[in-house]
Amino acid sequence: MQVSFTPAEIAAIAQPKSTRGATTATICGIAALSDAAPGDLSFLGNPKYKTTVAATRASLVLLPVDYAGEPLPDQLFLFVENPSVALARICARIEQALWPKPAPGIHPTASVAPGARLAASATVGPLCVVEAGAVIGERAHLQAQVFVGREARMGDDCWLMPGTVLAAECVLGARVRLQPGAVVGSDGFGYEFTAGRHEKVPQLGTVEIGDDVEIGANSTIDRARFSRTVVGEGTKIDNLVQIGHNVVIGRHCLLCAQVGISGSTTLADFVVLGGKAGIAGHLAIGQGAKVGGGAAVTSDVPAGAFVNGNPAIPLQLERRLVILHQRLPELFKRVGALETRLG
Amino acid sequence: MQVSFTPAEIAAIAQPKSTRGATTATICGIAALSDAAPGDLSFLGNPKYKTTVAATRASLVLLPVDYAGEPLPDQLFLFVENPSVALARICARIEQALWPKPAPGIHPTASVAPGARLAASATVGPLCVVEAGAVIGERAHLQAQVFVGREARMGDDCWLMPGTVLAAECVLGARVRLQPGAVVGSDGFGYEFTAGRHEKVPQLGTVEIGDDVEIGANSTIDRARFSRTVVGEGTKIDNLVQIGHNVVIGRHCLLCAQVGISGSTTLADFVVLGGKAGIAGHLAIGQGAKVGGGAAVTSDVPAGAFVNGNPAIPLQLERRLVILHQRLPELFKRVGALETRLG
Amino acid sequence: MQVSFTPAEIAAIAQPKSTRGATTATICGIAALSDAAPGDLSFLGNPKYKTTVAATRASLVLLPVDYAGEPLPDQLFLFVENPSVALARICARIEQALWPKPAPGIHPTASVAPGARLAASATVGPLCVVEAGAVIGERAHLQAQVFVGREARMGDDCWLMPGTVLAAECVLGARVRLQPGAVVGSDGFGYEFTAGRHEKVPQLGTVEIGDDVEIGANSTIDRARFSRTVVGEGTKIDNLVQIGHNVVIGRHCLLCAQVGISGSTTLADFVVLGGKAGIAGHLAIGQGAKVGGGAAVTSDVPAGAFVNGNPAIPLQLERRLVILHQRLPELFKRVGALETRLG
Repeated sequence: MQVSFTPAEIAAIAQPKSTRGATTATICGIAALSDAAPGDLSFLGNPKYKTTVAATRASLVLLPVDYAGEPLPDQLFLFVENPSVALARICARIEQALWPKPAPGIHPTASVAPGARLAASATVGPLCVVEAGAVIGERAHLQAQVFVGREARMGDDCWLMPGTVLAAECVLGARVRLQPGAVVGSDGFGYEFTAGRHEKVPQLGTVEIGDDVEIGANSTIDRARFSRTVVGEGTKIDNLVQIGHNVVIGRHCLLCAQVGISGSTTLADFVVLGGKAGIAGHLAIGQGAKVGGGAAVTSDVPAGAFVNGNPAIPLQLERRLVILHQRLPELFKRVGALETRLG
Repeated sequence: MQVSFTPAEIAAIAQPKSTRGATTATICGIAALSDAAPGDLSFLGNPKYKTTVAATRASLVLLPVDYAGEPLPDQLFLFVENPSVALARICARIEQALWPKPAPGIHPTASVAPGARLAASATVGPLCVVEAGAVIGERAHLQAQVFVGREARMGDDCWLMPGTVLAAECVLGARVRLQPGAVVGSDGFGYEFTAGRHEKVPQLGTVEIGDDVEIGANSTIDRARFSRTVVGEGTKIDNLVQIGHNVVIGRHCLLCAQVGISGSTTLADFVVLGGKAGIAGHLAIGQGAKVGGGAAVTSDVPAGAFVNGNPAIPLQLERRLVILHQRLPELFKRVGALETRLG
Repeated sequence: MQVSFTPAEIAAIAQPKSTRGATTATICGIAALSDAAPGDLSFLGNPKYKTTVAATRASLVLLPVDYAGEPLPDQLFLFVENPSVALARICARIEQALWPKPAPGIHPTASVAPGARLAASATVGPLCVVEAGAVIGERAHLQAQVFVGREARMGDDCWLMPGTVLAAECVLGARVRLQPGAVVGSDGFGYEFTAGRHEKVPQLGTVEIGDDVEIGANSTIDRARFSRTVVGEGTKIDNLVQIGHNVVIGRHCLLCAQVGISGSTTLADFVVLGGKAGIAGHLAIGQGAKVGGGAAVTSDVPAGAFVNGNPAIPLQLERRLVILHQRLPELFKRVGALETRLG
C-alpha cells in the first residue's frame, strides 16, 4: 500500500464533528492503534481498545465523539460518529487511488462478439470473452480473463475480477463485485433416475443478482431449473459458497465462507449464515435469522431465531446440550453409583 | 428463456400414450403448475401436487397416464409414463435451441499446439489453450478460456464450459460436461516429512472420467500418485466437490455440493453422498450406500446402508441418538431426582 | 506416464546404501508392490506390506536397509534409508522428464504490461496476463491463462498452473506452486453495518506466501484489511481451502482439503488441520497442534494438542464422548429401570 494524503485531505473525507491537536505528517499508511508509527492513520473501532489510544504513535486517529483523552505532540484526533464507518470511507478513497480503473475501452486481446452492447464508459480488459447479446453497463470493469455469456446483462459500475464467469442470460444489478473465480449461472444439480441412469434435467432458468451484491472468490451460484435463482440487493457472499438452483436470497444477508444452500430454499432479508453452515433444500429461513458456523439446518428457521449445531436447534438449547454432553462420563458414573446402592 | 414450440412439436418429443383436450397456444415457457400462464408448458412430477392440476392455467400439461381430470378450454393434456422424464427430454431440446453449439472450428484467439489432434467437427472457442498431443473428440465443445493439457484426451460430444481445466494426460469419456471452473487433474496432496520439512511426492498418475459424467462448477479432481483416479460412467458431481488422489468412484453415483473424498477411497456403483459429506481416506463404500448431508464417514459403509452423523453411523440409530441427546436435560434431572430420593 | 530409465539411472538418483540382485529390465513405470509388473519400479513405504515384497514382480524395488529377503531372478533390490523419500526423489526426476518446463520467453498470445519486470529465464505461457509493475523471478513458469496483478511479485522457480490468480501487490516466495484455479489476494470479507446496509470495508492489505508453499486447486487466500495475510515457508495447502483476511499461518503446516480459517486467526509452525476442519476467527493455534477432520475449533488450541469434534475438544475426551453418546439408549433404559424399582 503506497499512499500519500495530507491530514486535511483525510479530514475532508471523514468530515469530523470536531478535532483536537495537529500534525504536520503526511499520511502514508493505516495500522491498528498498537502497531501504528508516525505517518500512519489509526482508529478506535472497538471500545475495548480505548486504553491503547493514549500510547499510539499514529499521526492521525479517528475517535468516537465521547473519547476524552488528549493527543500527543504532532498528533491529530478526528472525532466522528462511527470511526469504523469513517475509516471505510477513507479506505474506499485509498482503494481508488491504489487501483484506479483502467481507461474505458476494449483491450485488443479481448474477444467481444459483434452483437454485444457495451457502454462507452465500460472497460473490457485483456483476454475477456463477451458473447453475443450481452449488455455491459456504464463504467463496468471486466478486469481480465472474464467470461460473459450470451444475453447476459450487468448494470453500471460492476467489477468482475479475473477469471469470473457470468453465464448466458444471467443478470447482475449495479455495483456488483465478483471476486476472482466466482461463477454465476452454472447448471443446477438436477437429474431424473430412469432406466438405471441419472438423466440430466436441463437447467433453463437464470440467475438474478441485485444491486450492491458482492460474491466471493470461487463461489458458485447455480441457474434455476426454470425461472430464476435470486440474490437480493446488498447481500454479501464470501468465498467458496455454493448456492443451489432456485434458491431465493433476500436483501442485506451475509453468507460466510464455504456456506452451502440446497435447491429451492428461501432466505428472507438480513439473514446471517456462519462459515461452513449448510442449509437443506426447500426450507424457509426467516428475516434476521442467524445460523452458527458449521451448523446443518434441516428445518425452517423462524424470523429472528439463532440456531446452531447439527442438526441445528435454537442456540441456547444447543449450548446447554454441548455442556451436558461433556458431562456424560459423570452421568454414567452417577447412574452406576445408584445401581450399586440399589444392589 | 425465449422459446417457441407448437403443441405438435412438444408432442413429437414427449411421445404421449394418449392426449386429452386441445390448444391453439404457442408454447413459450415452462413453469410449475401453480405459476404457469397461458403459453406455458407444465407437468405433474410429484403426485402430491395432483390437486393443483385442475387450477393450472398452463396451455399444455404433462401428466401420468392414471390422471383422471379433464382439461380446461384451450388446454392440452399429454399422458406419459413419467412426466419428469418427458419434461427432461423436452428441456434438452429447448436447451439446444436456446444455446446452440457454435459452428465447428478453432476460434482465431485460441492457442492450439501443433501436435494436438482435433476432430473436424469439434469447436474450440475463444481464448482456449490446447497443448501438444491432446486429442479432442467429434463435436466436442471447448466453450471459452478452457485449458487442455498435453496428451489429455476427451471423447465425442464433451462440453467444457468457460475456465475449465483438463490437465496433462487426463482422460474424459464421451458426453462429459465440465461446469465452469472445474479442474480435472490437479496434483494429489502427498508429502513425505523428512529433515523437518514436507517434501513433495510428485503426482505422476492421471484421472479417468467415464462417459456421461458431469462435474460441477469449481470442483476439483486430483490426479493419482501413480495409476489413476477414476470416476465411473454416469456419475454426477455437484459444485465445489473435492476428490482426492487415487479415489475410485463407481458408476451412476451422485455427489452433492461440497462433498470431499480423501485419497484412495473407493465408491461402488449407485452411491449417493449428501451435501458437505466427508469421507476419510482408504475406505470402501458399498453399492447403493447413502450418506447424509454433512456426515463424516470414518469407516467402511456396507452396500445398501444409509449412514449419517459425525462420525457417521446407521441412520436409524443416528436419528434415535439425536432425539435422546435433546432429552439430556430431562435425563440429568431424573438422575438428580433419584439421587435425592436415595439421600 | 511414458518413461524409460535404466536401473543404473534409478540407482544414481536413489543412491542406495547397498544393493542385492540384478535386472536387465528398462524401468517404464511405477506401481504398488502387488500391482507391479516386470519393467516397474516398486517400493516398501509402509512396513505392514513387508510380506508382499517376496511376491512382487517389479524389476526394481526400493527397500529399507533392514529388509532381509532375497530378490527373484532378474530383480534388483536397492536398500535406502527411507524408501518413500527415495521414491519421491525419483518421481521428481520423472516429473521433469514427463512435463518439461517450456523454453523461457513470453508466448505471443500473453498480455504483459510494459512496466512488468520478468526474469529472462521465466516462461509466460499462452493467454496469461501480467499487469504493470509485476516482478517475475528466474525460471518462474506461468503455464497458461494465469493472472498476475499490478505490483505483484514472485520469487524464483514458481509454477503457476492454468487459471491461477495472483492479485495486485501480493507476494510469492521461491518455488511456490499454485494448482489450477487457486486465488491469492481476493478481498477479505469485511463490512460495516450502517444505515441498514453492509458497507464494504476496502481490503487494502496484501498476501505474503513463503518459500516452498503449495496451494491447492481452487483454494482462496484473502488479502488483509491492512497489513498482510501470511502463509509461512514450506506450508502445504490442499484444494478448496479458504484462508480469511489477516490470518497468519506458520511454517511447515498441512491444511487438508476444504479447510476454512476465519479472519485474524494465527497458526504456529507444524500445525496439521484435517479435511473440512473449520477454525473460528481471532484464535491462536499452537505449534504442532492437530485438528481432526471436520472439527470446528471455537477456542485457542495449545501447542501439541490434538482436538476433534464440534465444538473441538481434546481427542481423547471426544473419542470417549462419542462412545458414551452411542450408549444413550442403554443409559435411558437404566435410569428408567431405577425409577421403576423405586416406584
